[in-house]
Amino acid sequence: MTATNAARKIAVIGLGSMGFGMAQSLLRAGFAVTGFDTQPEIGARFAAQNGIAAASPLEALSGADIVVVIVVTAEQTKQVLLADDGLLAATAPSAVVISCATMAPDRARELAVAVEAAGRHYVDAPISGGSIRAAEGALTMLVSGKPAAVEKGRPAFEAMAAKLYVLGDEPGIGASFKIVNQLLAGVHIAAACEAITFAKKLGLDIGKVYEVLTGSAGNSWMFENRVPHILDGDYRPRSAVEIFTKDLGIIADISRTEKFATPIASSALQMFLMTAAAGMAKDDDSSVARLYAQISGLDLPAMKKD
Amino acid sequence: MTATNAARKIAVIGLGSMGFGMAQSLLRAGFAVTGFDTQPEIGARFAAQNGIAAASPLEALSGADIVVVIVVTAEQTKQVLLADDGLLAATAPSAVVISCATMAPDRARELAVAVEAAGRHYVDAPISGGSIRAAEGALTMLVSGKPAAVEKGRPAFEAMAAKLYVLGDEPGIGASFKIVNQLLAGVHIAAACEAITFAKKLGLDIGKVYEVLTGSAGNSWMFENRVPHILDGDYRPRSAVEIFTKDLGIIADISRTEKFATPIASSALQMFLMTAAAGMAKDDDSSVARLYAQISGLDLPAMKKD
Repeated sequence: MTATNAARKIAVIGLGSMGFGMAQSLLRAGFAVTGFDTQPEIGARFAAQNGIAAASPLEALSGADIVVVIVVTAEQTKQVLLADDGLLAATAPSAVVISCATMAPDRARELAVAVEAAGRHYVDAPISGGSIRAAEGALTMLVSGKPAAVEKGRPAFEAMAAKLYVLGDEPGIGASFKIVNQLLAGVHIAAACEAITFAKKLGLDIGKVYEVLTGSAGNSWMFENRVPHILDGDYRPRSAVEIFTKDLGIIADISRTEKFATPIASSALQMFLMTAAAGMAKDDDSSVARLYAQISGLDLPAMKKD
Repeated sequence: MTATNAARKIAVIGLGSMGFGMAQSLLRAGFAVTGFDTQPEIGARFAAQNGIAAASPLEALSGADIVVVIVVTAEQTKQVLLADDGLLAATAPSAVVISCATMAPDRARELAVAVEAAGRHYVDAPISGGSIRAAEGALTMLVSGKPAAVEKGRPAFEAMAAKLYVLGDEPGIGASFKIVNQLLAGVHIAAACEAITFAKKLGLDIGKVYEVLTGSAGNSWMFENRVPHILDGDYRPRSAVEIFTKDLGIIADISRTEKFATPIASSALQMFLMTAAAGMAKDDDSSVARLYAQISGLDLPAMKKD
């Protein structure tokens, strides 16, 4: 694989905690990887690890066979690919764009139409798994797109993902799966924060609550993963509050457009919005617990300094 | 153990799906078990399995060393034990009452005071795990009470529980842990129902959604356990909607009494109330999905006939 991969140029746009790890996994698989990030110092760090740092998206895209876009929003993805006609035109003929940001399914479909109009392939490919798994090449990828597009991207998927789900042959299906996941994930984080502070209000030892409830029917992946941040008083962002104001916001948009009420997700969104409003937008999403505690005058374990 | 246990008479009050299994586990451990249920035919079924069926709570309690009360509410528990002075007086001197219903911590503390005033021991012992584990003697029990009371009940706990958590030496602590678990469990069921119907609205294959999301960060114990009921169209009550209108109702009561807002649990409660209002109170708690589907005109898999 490595010999073949070396001949393929990959551009990774967005070297945040997820994108950086994904770019590292692609390098490890033998691809020639050019990365771009709006923060030049991150590009420099990537260059120090045998990556190539580009000074602009255009430079990264030039000649690329595979373009992995791992920015935060649909709008940023559109800017990277379509801000001017020169961007996609600079990629290799019949290049494939792998779009990883969480976005509304309609936005994924719109982007696909625009990319295909420029003669390039498009794969809707949201990801799940966090930065550690990104760096290990062990992400979950929720992929949909035309079979030829998916096949063109497959060597890159194999380098980045431990679980690759090909969910359908149209863009938007991957985005839909991801947004359903985010509904559950966001509600579960808010519920974990509500439950653990409610337990504190009842006078319980919240460390013991964590121990007992992770082994019970009340457990969730998020309860198990996020409550330790609260127990450690460590709100450095592994995933930030503003990710969930965005993702639950997409659900709220779809909810209104499609006339489908989502009262549980809506309550969770309000809690993330309140937490962001209280100054914690860029802190760890478990900060919703700090909001409940602040409102009610509860003492949670002291915050760690960075 | 069996030889010792045979000398101890246990009363089990309430032979519903949980109580019946617990009584079976106690029989298997060698205890002499007398059971009572308000439905005489259930008592007869218990007698057919080598249990003793009592015609009244008083008959069951007479001479009992250990009394396991596994009814639904605090009020029912109070009736069983305290409807008249003769009930507790009929038990063996220094008998222990093991109270398993999910109730507000304050109610558990009140019951303990009343039982202790009658010279008997009280253990606050809510349970988790479902009817299959009850029959296997493999429940999780969230126990608190005076050490002497807990020790007196221990042989029975060992027969009924795979995981026995002794959480403190005062009644009310077990109840508090259970109610925090129910907050999470109730929210996770409502979220699972919202998410799976939202997925249906997005046009996704909901069987595939179940497969993908159980392996993702959006998973919860309840999502994994309840969504198969929806996929099978099988709403026979393993645990009924009205259990969660009750348990989330206890949380709503505490929320107001303690001035601690629980907006996520409150949204979930409203969904269970709507599902009950629409005629599904005694159906499986996954029926919340049917409510979302009915409201929005979605087709879920056809319901199974009993």
